[in-house]
Amino acid sequence: MEQKTKINAENNKQEMRITREFELPVELLFKAYAEAELIEQWMGTKVLKLESKKHGSYQFETTDPKGNKHGFSGVIHEFIPNKKIIRTFEMENTPFGVQLEIHEFEKLTDDTSRINMHVIYESIEKRDQIMQLPFAQGLNMAHNRIQELLSKLKASQK
Amino acid sequence: MEQKTKINAENNKQEMRITREFELPVELLFKAYAEAELIEQWMGTKVLKLESKKHGSYQFETTDPKGNKHGFSGVIHEFIPNKKIIRTFEMENTPFGVQLEIHEFEKLTDDTSRINMHVIYESIEKRDQIMQLPFAQGLNMAHNRIQELLSKLKASQK
Repeated sequence: MEQKTKINAENNKQEMRITREFELPVELLFKAYAEAELIEQWMGTKVLKLESKKHGSYQFETTDPKGNKHGFSGVIHEFIPNKKIIRTFEMENTPFGVQLEIHEFEKLTDDTSRINMHVIYESIEKRDQIMQLPFAQGLNMAHNRIQELLSKLKASQK
Repeated sequence: MEQKTKINAENNKQEMRITREFELPVELLFKAYAEAELIEQWMGTKVLKLESKKHGSYQFETTDPKGNKHGFSGVIHEFIPNKKIIRTFEMENTPFGVQLEIHEFEKLTDDTSRINMHVIYESIEKRDQIMQLPFAQGLNMAHNRIQELLSKLKASQK
C-alpha cells in the first residue's frame, strides 16, 4: 500500500524533503508539534523538556523493548505558530550527526493541511545511513498516529 | 597575498569547509568565540544576547556606514569548551536562510591552534549567493582581528 508520507531524497544530496497531508485543520496539526502531551502520544517518547518558542530547546527520551534509553534533543531556531518551526535534531550517541529541520505548516482548506519538512544533514553519507533505517515506514506510522490522535481530539471538542 | 583563512567550497554542494591556524593557545582561540566582549571587538558587532552553553542562543547587531542595523542570531546546539560549538546562524531579513555551523577547535601545540568550520546551507543556491558576497576577504580580516586581539590579551596576561 502506498504510504501517505512522501519522501524525496535525491541522489548525492545531503538533504531530503518530506510531505504529508492531513485531514486536520492546520492549527491542530501544529499543536501535534508544539505540545508536549501530544508529542508523547504520537512519538511514543517521554518529553523531558520542551520550550516551544524561538530560541527554545527540547529533550526527548524513548525506551526500547530491551529497556535501553535513547535521547533526542535540539534547539529551536524559529517558532511561528501554525506556520513554521526551524530546529536542530540529534539522535544522541549515534553517528548520524546533527540535522537542521525546517517544518512548514500549510493550510489547504479549513479542515485539511500539509506539513512540508526540509531536512539537511551534515553529509550525504549521514543522510544515506539514516535512509537505511526503517525510516520511511516509521515516519509514515508516526504521521498516522498524528492523524488518529488529533482526529479524536477534534471530535471531542465538537 | 595568500589569505590565511582557507575556504573549500566544492561545486554543487550545499556546504563549505573553512580552516584557519592561529598563533594562539586553543583556550584563547575558543574565548574569541565564547565571550561577548571579545566577539564585539573582532566581529565589530554589538552583542545583544549570548548564552554560551548547550541549548543557549545569541543575538548580535551591526550598524553599517549608512546607519542601518543588521541582526544576526541563532541557537547553540552543542557547546564543549575548547573543543566544539555547534550552532545555527541567520542573517536576519536576508534571503540566505538558516545555516548549521560546526566549529571545531583543535590544539596544535601549546601556542598554536586551528579552527575547522563546517557550514551547511539550506541549498546550493544559497551557499553560492553567500560566496558572491565579499565573504572570503571579510572572514580572513575578521580572523586577522582575532589573532591581533588575542595576542595582545595573551601578552597582557604574562
